[in-house]
Amino acid sequence: MNYKMIANLIGRILVLEAAFLLPAAGISLYYQETKSCQAIVISAVVTALFGVALMFIKAKNKNFYAREGYISAALVWIVMSLFGALPFFLSAEIPSYIDCVFETISGFTTTGASILSNVETLSKGLLYWRSFTHWVGGMGVLVFVLALQPMSRGSGQDVHLLRAESPGPVVEKLTPKMHQSAKILYGIYIGMTLLQILLLLLGKMPVFDAVTTAFGTAGTGGFGVRVDSMASYSHYIQTVVTIFMALFGVNFIIYYYILLGKPSQIFRNEELRLYLFILLAATLLISFNTISFYHSFPEALHHSAFQVSSIMTTTGFATVDFNLWPQFSKCILLLLMIVGASAGSTGGGIKVARLLLLGKYARCERKRIVSPREISLVRMDGKVVDDDIMREVNLYMTSYFAVIAASFLLISLDNFDIETTISSVLACLNNIGPGLGLAGPMSCYEGFSNFSKLVLCINMLVGRLEIFPFLTLLAPSAWERK
Amino acid sequence: MNYKMIANLIGRILVLEAAFLLPAAGISLYYQETKSCQAIVISAVVTALFGVALMFIKAKNKNFYAREGYISAALVWIVMSLFGALPFFLSAEIPSYIDCVFETISGFTTTGASILSNVETLSKGLLYWRSFTHWVGGMGVLVFVLALQPMSRGSGQDVHLLRAESPGPVVEKLTPKMHQSAKILYGIYIGMTLLQILLLLLGKMPVFDAVTTAFGTAGTGGFGVRVDSMASYSHYIQTVVTIFMALFGVNFIIYYYILLGKPSQIFRNEELRLYLFILLAATLLISFNTISFYHSFPEALHHSAFQVSSIMTTTGFATVDFNLWPQFSKCILLLLMIVGASAGSTGGGIKVARLLLLGKYARCERKRIVSPREISLVRMDGKVVDDDIMREVNLYMTSYFAVIAASFLLISLDNFDIETTISSVLACLNNIGPGLGLAGPMSCYEGFSNFSKLVLCINMLVGRLEIFPFLTLLAPSAWERK
Repeated sequence: MNYKMIANLIGRILVLEAAFLLPAAGISLYYQETKSCQAIVISAVVTALFGVALMFIKAKNKNFYAREGYISAALVWIVMSLFGALPFFLSAEIPSYIDCVFETISGFTTTGASILSNVETLSKGLLYWRSFTHWVGGMGVLVFVLALQPMSRGSGQDVHLLRAESPGPVVEKLTPKMHQSAKILYGIYIGMTLLQILLLLLGKMPVFDAVTTAFGTAGTGGFGVRVDSMASYSHYIQTVVTIFMALFGVNFIIYYYILLGKPSQIFRNEELRLYLFILLAATLLISFNTISFYHSFPEALHHSAFQVSSIMTTTGFATVDFNLWPQFSKCILLLLMIVGASAGSTGGGIKVARLLLLGKYARCERKRIVSPREISLVRMDGKVVDDDIMREVNLYMTSYFAVIAASFLLISLDNFDIETTISSVLACLNNIGPGLGLAGPMSCYEGFSNFSKLVLCINMLVGRLEIFPFLTLLAPSAWERK
Repeated sequence: MNYKMIANLIGRILVLEAAFLLPAAGISLYYQETKSCQAIVISAVVTALFGVALMFIKAKNKNFYAREGYISAALVWIVMSLFGALPFFLSAEIPSYIDCVFETISGFTTTGASILSNVETLSKGLLYWRSFTHWVGGMGVLVFVLALQPMSRGSGQDVHLLRAESPGPVVEKLTPKMHQSAKILYGIYIGMTLLQILLLLLGKMPVFDAVTTAFGTAGTGGFGVRVDSMASYSHYIQTVVTIFMALFGVNFIIYYYILLGKPSQIFRNEELRLYLFILLAATLLISFNTISFYHSFPEALHHSAFQVSSIMTTTGFATVDFNLWPQFSKCILLLLMIVGASAGSTGGGIKVARLLLLGKYARCERKRIVSPREISLVRMDGKVVDDDIMREVNLYMTSYFAVIAASFLLISLDNFDIETTISSVLACLNNIGPGLGLAGPMSCYEGFSNFSKLVLCINMLVGRLEIFPFLTLLAPSAWERK
């Protein structure tokens, strides 16, 4: 294990985080929130000092393998969250440090689960920081660092870091150079975020609300600045958010193809087709099922589309309390929580691509049982899928369900009903935010015990980094000096 | 597809089923239940006639592959259930035919889910038949036929049938001859059932209750003859049932080793060790968690051991309403429902062996990520596990969760709470019987819609035959004439 390179990397991330805190301090200043401004500035200074100290560690050995990539990702995200929680704690706006850490992990992992029963009591500066964590966590902080400057050349560090932080079974290279790919990804990301802010402003949304909402949408996070999430905004604004949530749940490679003017590549993408089909089918089914709740079919369609888009992309905004919907609609949402968004998007969940691969693999294996002598291969987008990828998908699924089972049991110690228990685990592991029951969209995680909050924190991190970094962290052999 | 051989086989099974009905008719006669005796006799005659008619179909082509094995198993179990439901229907003791079929499928698949709110209203003859379906379904009806006489030699029919009906990822051959293996299995099965009857009689249980309870235990079924399941029997009787449920959840190969006097083979069996560990750990955890419910720790231990043994082996008997237990205990039971019993036992669920293989496989793959150059193989009981077995386990898991997701959605149309919805699917797919909520141990499936009952019937069959027969049934290529 190349400890020194990892320490150096963590240092760089902390300095970057300190820089990210400065705009939040500016906003606090603008709104004349002296106490929170001080808290943010102190946090930034402390974070920067630790970062600079770690950056003094220089590695002579430049070997950086997949193992180092995974462990870096796990450690970076943990350390970043511990420091990112400081402003909430130092300002005393969230009194308990574990709650501060929960809120920050929930932010960076784009979960959007909150321990605040009323977000409107937070100062503007902290509300901004809270939403900004979504934005940077969505595309990834390691990807951001890569976009800024290439890492040590030839060591393989770039590719292993990008792989460890990007969601989905396959990381497609946009360009041969990782540095370049990261730049393109962030370019598209910034462009789309700005476009959404513009469209929200056209709907007469206040600037502060528009920026934070766009951050929450882009990262598919779901932290809002109002206690009723998106319920009190206009239909126009809700519609813009519906569309952008769906867009940020798409693999970013699709947008890259659009930029390159290769539409044929887009329609060949099987994951995109399935993703859109599920969005549409779920929206229609819920619309029909909830029609009696709303004045008309268009109204039911409006709320159904918003909630489906929000849950499937694992954002977690809400315009209504879907806890009150009929069971069939709630069950659809519960399944969408598990499905999740597309690979290579900012969304969480198992990802449509993984489920598609599993389905294809199952069909292939079934063929083998029926006609043992015929050989059939798993193909996706016209290409044969490598056996290694299928093995990783299977490992992912096994670990995924093991994490759910263990967390379910630990959370059940809080003695909530089964609906709350299972949906809180799914909502955190899949980085959605609101679950059902007491963890529902118009409720919050305040009532959970500290132990459960810790379990859910781990779930959020494991979900965002897609299990492998934490599996590696737990492997004794990863820590041997080699 | 060799239709003729399959038809002939179904014919033989129906004749056997008719023969199985005769003791039930005798018991009806003894208890002077004229109407149900008539119904049973008519059912037997109708079943026998259909059976004999099908047996006239002779196949010239003796090719019988895995495909034929799976499809035979699926069709045999469906047809057998449709005919086995006749006595309930013709006697009018269960008025709706779909309810009769539900009860019969629940019997043969050893699920033990009932639509009867009060079983004590059934006549003795039908109660006997209901419990007997558990007994024959537990070890398998195709295995029974194989034990009676070898099938057409050299066609591979024996091995493919045994494989299609026996639970677990691997079917170990006790002897090179399948006919011989089936005989040994049924010999052990009959011996253990008789031993349990004897021990129950020593506890002064009425003969009728002892026989039917032993049938329900041996098949890990769970149909009782009293409305409160096992709650009103003595502690001695409950303890005997606890122990025998656990014993019937063990791979029968263990008993064969005992007969052969090879104890070393037993302790080497990793599945057995894990099975016993889970039983013990779950019992202790629940005992501590429910201690405030009962007078003392021994009392809590007694009920905890019974319920854990009942749920893990997927039997479904109950001595208390575990619906009232704290959430932690309920969640343990919910997880045990999924784990299930051992491969090669009469129990259902995913099976301990499959989970053990998945765990080993995950560890192996994790090693590959951490140190890509080291080769590590999955070993079980000291032997290297074939890649094909891992592929089948993965296919099983994917299909298993796909069935759960689809059933969950369909049952949710009944608008029960999430706890009832998910636990009814798990209780049927894993062949347990009682779930939680409205499907709890002191409740029944009467309140479910006919559509839901049908979905649950399919779940029970898919669970008992472990998915592959039904996957094959749904493969278009299986039906091509070759």
